[in-house]
Amino acid sequence: MRIAILAVGDELLLGDVVNANAAWLGRRLSDAGLQVVASAVVADDVAAIAAATRQLLSEADAVVVSGGLGPTSDDVTRDALAELAGVALVLDPVLERSVRQWFAGRGVSLTAGALRMAELPAGATALANAAGTAPGVRLEVGGGLVVAVPGVPVELRDMVERLVLPDLLARSGAPHAIVTRTVHVALLGESAVADRLTPLTEDIADAGVRLAYLAGLGAVQVRLTAQAPDRPGADAILGPLVQRVRDLVGDAVCGVDGETLDRAVHRLLATGQATVAVAESLTGGLLGSALTDMPGSSKTFRGGVTAYATELKAWLLGVDPDLIEQVGAVHRSVAGQMAAGVRARLSATYGVATTGVAGPEPQDGRPAGTVHVAVAGPAGVVVASPTLTGGRDRIRRLTVVHALDLLRRVLSRLATPGAEQVA
Amino acid sequence: MRIAILAVGDELLLGDVVNANAAWLGRRLSDAGLQVVASAVVADDVAAIAAATRQLLSEADAVVVSGGLGPTSDDVTRDALAELAGVALVLDPVLERSVRQWFAGRGVSLTAGALRMAELPAGATALANAAGTAPGVRLEVGGGLVVAVPGVPVELRDMVERLVLPDLLARSGAPHAIVTRTVHVALLGESAVADRLTPLTEDIADAGVRLAYLAGLGAVQVRLTAQAPDRPGADAILGPLVQRVRDLVGDAVCGVDGETLDRAVHRLLATGQATVAVAESLTGGLLGSALTDMPGSSKTFRGGVTAYATELKAWLLGVDPDLIEQVGAVHRSVAGQMAAGVRARLSATYGVATTGVAGPEPQDGRPAGTVHVAVAGPAGVVVASPTLTGGRDRIRRLTVVHALDLLRRVLSRLATPGAEQVA
Repeated sequence: MRIAILAVGDELLLGDVVNANAAWLGRRLSDAGLQVVASAVVADDVAAIAAATRQLLSEADAVVVSGGLGPTSDDVTRDALAELAGVALVLDPVLERSVRQWFAGRGVSLTAGALRMAELPAGATALANAAGTAPGVRLEVGGGLVVAVPGVPVELRDMVERLVLPDLLARSGAPHAIVTRTVHVALLGESAVADRLTPLTEDIADAGVRLAYLAGLGAVQVRLTAQAPDRPGADAILGPLVQRVRDLVGDAVCGVDGETLDRAVHRLLATGQATVAVAESLTGGLLGSALTDMPGSSKTFRGGVTAYATELKAWLLGVDPDLIEQVGAVHRSVAGQMAAGVRARLSATYGVATTGVAGPEPQDGRPAGTVHVAVAGPAGVVVASPTLTGGRDRIRRLTVVHALDLLRRVLSRLATPGAEQVA
Repeated sequence: MRIAILAVGDELLLGDVVNANAAWLGRRLSDAGLQVVASAVVADDVAAIAAATRQLLSEADAVVVSGGLGPTSDDVTRDALAELAGVALVLDPVLERSVRQWFAGRGVSLTAGALRMAELPAGATALANAAGTAPGVRLEVGGGLVVAVPGVPVELRDMVERLVLPDLLARSGAPHAIVTRTVHVALLGESAVADRLTPLTEDIADAGVRLAYLAGLGAVQVRLTAQAPDRPGADAILGPLVQRVRDLVGDAVCGVDGETLDRAVHRLLATGQATVAVAESLTGGLLGSALTDMPGSSKTFRGGVTAYATELKAWLLGVDPDLIEQVGAVHRSVAGQMAAGVRARLSATYGVATTGVAGPEPQDGRPAGTVHVAVAGPAGVVVASPTLTGGRDRIRRLTVVHALDLLRRVLSRLATPGAEQVA
């Protein structure tokens, strides 16, 4: 089944807002096995929306329109769909009651345009909005289907998951349960991951599963999407494939589904009733903020010291001043002493440290991208020394990934290629 | 002059990549006074690209196509433009030489598809790529203009600024210099900023200047764009208007053009030869990472202590344990003592502290969003206690904005509404 996406809004054409709805819809619909053949953006203009929808209906079996359903005068998607279908807009009594109730329930007086949201093109069906006020619109036009959903992302996503996707799938005759599993991989490039999965490619295709890679900074997501008549059926297809992906990719896999690298570290710490403290230099607090991003982090995160000025590495973390004098602040031994120092001073099970040159200028004669990360724990101190490339922001963020992954490997008792036991 | 934007790429339709190029082009072209009337996305498919370009040429005077100009077999924009114009692709000897030189210069052997980048539809002109390999294509088709640029953002932006925009403006007869000035506003809502600028609206319109608002988290950018025959002319139009925006918005303005809130703070510290140290709780390192984001931050940032576990607030920062016993860790007096403690222990001119409840769960009986930020300096300690709403991530990030803005106000000797001098 061929689907087109149409996003309505001057702010999208003018670039004041990035069209993230189209990306979300594209991924969700193609994961579900529907074919997204075109995507377009139009202004808040009745004739333009009607013309674009008509054009897209000539290329696709269904058009999903987002935006322009609110109460203000520039919300004209309803008018455009009525024009497209050659029908009038009519006030729907059920919708009118629910709009009035929504305002009354919040103690807000009905605004002038609010009742526009209770209007529908004659013959159209309303789609209930569980996350906001403006209902969606479903309309059959000359053998094609047009579904309009609100542009507010949380409302759009809810309505698509709950009402639009099942409708499109029923129409396409495709099976009903679509399940995506995600395997998170740290510090391995997309092409290296794809290489390791080569033996699996045929089985994945034979199982009717869609395989996609999503590359982030120091991370790759392997996404497997299966369709089946029901959820247990899809789970049964995916379970063994996810396990084989884990086996083939190996210990660069940090988790599955919600378990990204930072969450994997949090879970490993919590499982072992262990805590962590951080000693940061070039990352300036980014490592601590990654470890406190998730709810419940106060159970595993003690705190941290950012010793940006060199003398603070001695004052606050107990790094040997003579060592710094000899080798400078950017050195594997300094990273090791920072990790051990913060572990002892903050009474944590593990200490993690970062030192290096974020750039753009060299420091102590060392070029930008020179980085050392260290983990101190009950079994000693380990240091990894990656050489990173790119700008200041990229180097800082990649350093955080290297530090978290080193901690994950220590917690999981995995070897780290290139890392050195220093104490 | 009416312009349409066409982005080429399966990855955009599938939502694996968000269409940020369209947003950038939309903003750049409309800032330049051109009217962006439509935007679309098509698959990597010769017929689809040709059909979409033809369709957009019926709605606009010029189409800017992005993507599909690289060397691989799925880069088919050149083929599509040749099909659209009904001409053949021909190898351009000048382009061939430059492609060969590019590969030779990097010691890389010419890949199979590389010479595809030296082909042009007969009658088309090449646009030099100063930031990469693949040249752009300029083609007149039946009275309309088609310009194809690479999809790699840095190459696209360079080529548009240097070649495409001047070409479009010359064609539209519009003046040549387009200058945008940006006024950064902290902690004032978009509608409040717009209200304060009401007296200026007419003058802005009379000067032919475009006014746009871009709202971020705790920040609004007011963007003023002027056109004139030359750059000094545009500057002369904008200078007085920028000053009037500053006057009307008042001390919520933190800077102009590159001077965002964090950079304003960095400049104020550097100008006063002052340094800062941070004591963080709920922000877990985010405040420190904001203060070390820009190059040169080692001149103004000493370091920080993240005291996530309550007892560390006493151990590491010298907060009175009896005070914490009485009022808990989330209290204005605790914030004040954290700021004073980190200032003294890290020998900084200023100490900045955050404490509060990021959520989702309450802490010590206080709801998520309860936040205190403090600044300790030579003139004493000031605390602000905003009540924030939203999820955990939003509360943490808004806390950073409040802390930075309080520091900016202290450094600029401005009053902070609602803030209290505690010592």
